[in-house]
Amino acid sequence: MTTARKIFLEESEMPRQWYNLAADVKCPPFMSPAGPVPMEAWGPVFPMNLVEQEYSTQRWIDIPEGILALLMRWRPAPLHRALDLEKALGTPARIYYKNESLSPAGSHKPNTAVAQAWYNKQFGTKRLTTETGAGQWGSALSFACALVGLECKVFMVRVSFDQKPLRKLMMQTWGGTCIPSPSNETQAGRDILAKYPDTPGSLGIAISEAIEAAVSDPTGLTKYSLGSVLNHVMLHQTIIGLEAKKQLDKVGERLPDVVIGCAGGGSNFAGLSFPFVYDKIHGADIDIIPVEPSSCPTLTKAPYVYDHGDTARMTPLVAMHSLGHSFVPSPIHAGGLRYHGMAPLVSRAVEDGLMAPRSIQQLECYAAGMLFAKTEGIIPAPETTHAIAAVIQEARKATEEGKEKVILFNFSGHGLMDLVGYDKYLTGQLSDYDFPDDQIAKNHEELKGYPKP
Amino acid sequence: MTTARKIFLEESEMPRQWYNLAADVKCPPFMSPAGPVPMEAWGPVFPMNLVEQEYSTQRWIDIPEGILALLMRWRPAPLHRALDLEKALGTPARIYYKNESLSPAGSHKPNTAVAQAWYNKQFGTKRLTTETGAGQWGSALSFACALVGLECKVFMVRVSFDQKPLRKLMMQTWGGTCIPSPSNETQAGRDILAKYPDTPGSLGIAISEAIEAAVSDPTGLTKYSLGSVLNHVMLHQTIIGLEAKKQLDKVGERLPDVVIGCAGGGSNFAGLSFPFVYDKIHGADIDIIPVEPSSCPTLTKAPYVYDHGDTARMTPLVAMHSLGHSFVPSPIHAGGLRYHGMAPLVSRAVEDGLMAPRSIQQLECYAAGMLFAKTEGIIPAPETTHAIAAVIQEARKATEEGKEKVILFNFSGHGLMDLVGYDKYLTGQLSDYDFPDDQIAKNHEELKGYPKP
Repeated sequence: MTTARKIFLEESEMPRQWYNLAADVKCPPFMSPAGPVPMEAWGPVFPMNLVEQEYSTQRWIDIPEGILALLMRWRPAPLHRALDLEKALGTPARIYYKNESLSPAGSHKPNTAVAQAWYNKQFGTKRLTTETGAGQWGSALSFACALVGLECKVFMVRVSFDQKPLRKLMMQTWGGTCIPSPSNETQAGRDILAKYPDTPGSLGIAISEAIEAAVSDPTGLTKYSLGSVLNHVMLHQTIIGLEAKKQLDKVGERLPDVVIGCAGGGSNFAGLSFPFVYDKIHGADIDIIPVEPSSCPTLTKAPYVYDHGDTARMTPLVAMHSLGHSFVPSPIHAGGLRYHGMAPLVSRAVEDGLMAPRSIQQLECYAAGMLFAKTEGIIPAPETTHAIAAVIQEARKATEEGKEKVILFNFSGHGLMDLVGYDKYLTGQLSDYDFPDDQIAKNHEELKGYPKP
Repeated sequence: MTTARKIFLEESEMPRQWYNLAADVKCPPFMSPAGPVPMEAWGPVFPMNLVEQEYSTQRWIDIPEGILALLMRWRPAPLHRALDLEKALGTPARIYYKNESLSPAGSHKPNTAVAQAWYNKQFGTKRLTTETGAGQWGSALSFACALVGLECKVFMVRVSFDQKPLRKLMMQTWGGTCIPSPSNETQAGRDILAKYPDTPGSLGIAISEAIEAAVSDPTGLTKYSLGSVLNHVMLHQTIIGLEAKKQLDKVGERLPDVVIGCAGGGSNFAGLSFPFVYDKIHGADIDIIPVEPSSCPTLTKAPYVYDHGDTARMTPLVAMHSLGHSFVPSPIHAGGLRYHGMAPLVSRAVEDGLMAPRSIQQLECYAAGMLFAKTEGIIPAPETTHAIAAVIQEARKATEEGKEKVILFNFSGHGLMDLVGYDKYLTGQLSDYDFPDDQIAKNHEELKGYPKP
């Protein structure tokens, strides 16, 4: 063991395979009214090489050389030892974090963006469509499309489009097209605009528009891309945890006692934690904690059901924890943690007792983010502050117990594009949120008659 | 030699000494009406440990362990091979860049910010004041003060304060105070406001306010900090070039044929290039190119004179290339490259024939930045695009000559906080600038009677 602040890997030491949790955790199939959805049904939406990956239960999947070369633009990502956070907390715990904020887009999102762009390029796709809320995913996919030579069209929720012009500019600088949603470019968008001309838009509508824009291209050369939730997205992100394992090993550190990540759709959390879930399945004693906002308690309060992935019910039914597809999130600043559902693999692993989800209020998260900025020096994204708040809780527990625990978490992104949230926190404009206990039952009335997973 | 995209150093491989070019390039002294300025005269402004460093001609200066620990928050910085830029240009040149954009503040500025904060803390200083234009330096110093436990007060040029709210928020998140300048907190500010209540402010006024706020503290515990120009600032930045040397050596690469950096006050350029100036002095054949905007041609058009460092003529006379302290820059988007003067060591090295400065127009720079973003994937700061434009010129020259040149440049910062400039470029709102040839002579009339260096 060492007290180096950062542990690097050489490019030659990068993992050459992704870990597929679907080999070890069994999810129920996607369902349609006609029964389980066959692979072929996805053909108009995704390229078949990615669909095959989505359905694969092979445990280790080779990372193609072309994708490795793309990842090496910024990977391997350093593992940091949070020496100064430890000192500020006076904890006997050793805290490590994987720094995913060093990617050119500032978050973990490019890990799957470059993989999806590459597979689409191989398949012959000419352009990708996607939706984006706060803009992290839209900018990551624009970046990836620039590198492999695909067109990229992003439907951005109108209210974010207006409030976050910098994200749109990032996409444009990488050559992407960013359109406020709802738009006049799709039937779904036109229908909504006719009914509600002043709508701020929603992620559900933007998903509908992006899918329609892909499947309605008569050439078949436009495909859709999703930045979280699906199995192949989780798979691509496992490079985070696989690198972290090598790095801990490199400095003679043992397996962590606690693994933490914030969870919206689940991808950054899955990326770090799944390789350690593998160890847990094989007997290791690890607390694996996905952290969500108290205002969007998908894993901590919502049941495991079959529900749609989008508000407009265009997607097949997915077995997952869900607040209900008609869930309207409170306006918290962690825009990436406001999804009504959760990745099927994360949801199933929680059901199987492999993970212990936790929800934390907004103010505690911002306080944790401020402490992190002043000790470790990096300003975290609002999403990432949720992981940090849980780390602080665990470090305090270690102090109380007098245990030298090893805590590992995912620093999923920096907050340089999200400073307005910090401003609101510092000027007392933010508050905590009491989740109305009857909301889930109400939303779930719409799920009556759906199959049970 | 290898084709790795990134060359890392371990923390244990970090340079343990800075290189002081003042040992090998002799600058004339600071001058006041009473003659050369003695060290003691700086006492009210800077802590004496930094003043001693400013006057030192010792070639190698130990980096204190405390500063190394601070630098290790994000250093060593990776050296990248620009394989995709090379491919896009079809050049036989091998292009490397030092990635200084990965610091928590997004640029090279923290290298000297943490050193200055640490020396001040050692000296007993309680708070630092400084000025900032576009906000890079103010946020870097706020970051550094958070880490060592100093208060930080930043006077930010009012027009930038209003136009770039994100920078102010960065400073606040790190606990710094950011005040629009001119302010009512200083006599200098009040005088200007009385005369011109609607003034947009200027770097010259902000410098005056920051110095006054420091020297007027009766406890003597407030000091001033400068982010460029001075010898000790250049010294702290040499870690960039010293790391780059080790990294090139690590992959069996020879000394570069060309070394390039953008130059405003000179610090990022000096940081990369000075260790190679040492080699050039000892016989190596290296083209060392500081790149400035055509609209602010300090090194390429302005003479080497004695001039003030600020508009209000509060500083001693400095021997440097200067457009004249009353120079009013055109509104180009590279806010960090608009200073009327240039670091004395860079200026003197140009006089000694050790460097070949070059100026480039804004549109060529943005085009270079776009090509870089789409090939290498990282969006450069507007300042950094000037270095990239010169790299492209040199790579094309290598193609014409059929030479396998090694080109090294400093990627001084990312452009995520400066995307509005890209938007203006992409929408055709930017233009090139013809520098009026009579402007320098006119400005220099004010220097009549000053000593000659």
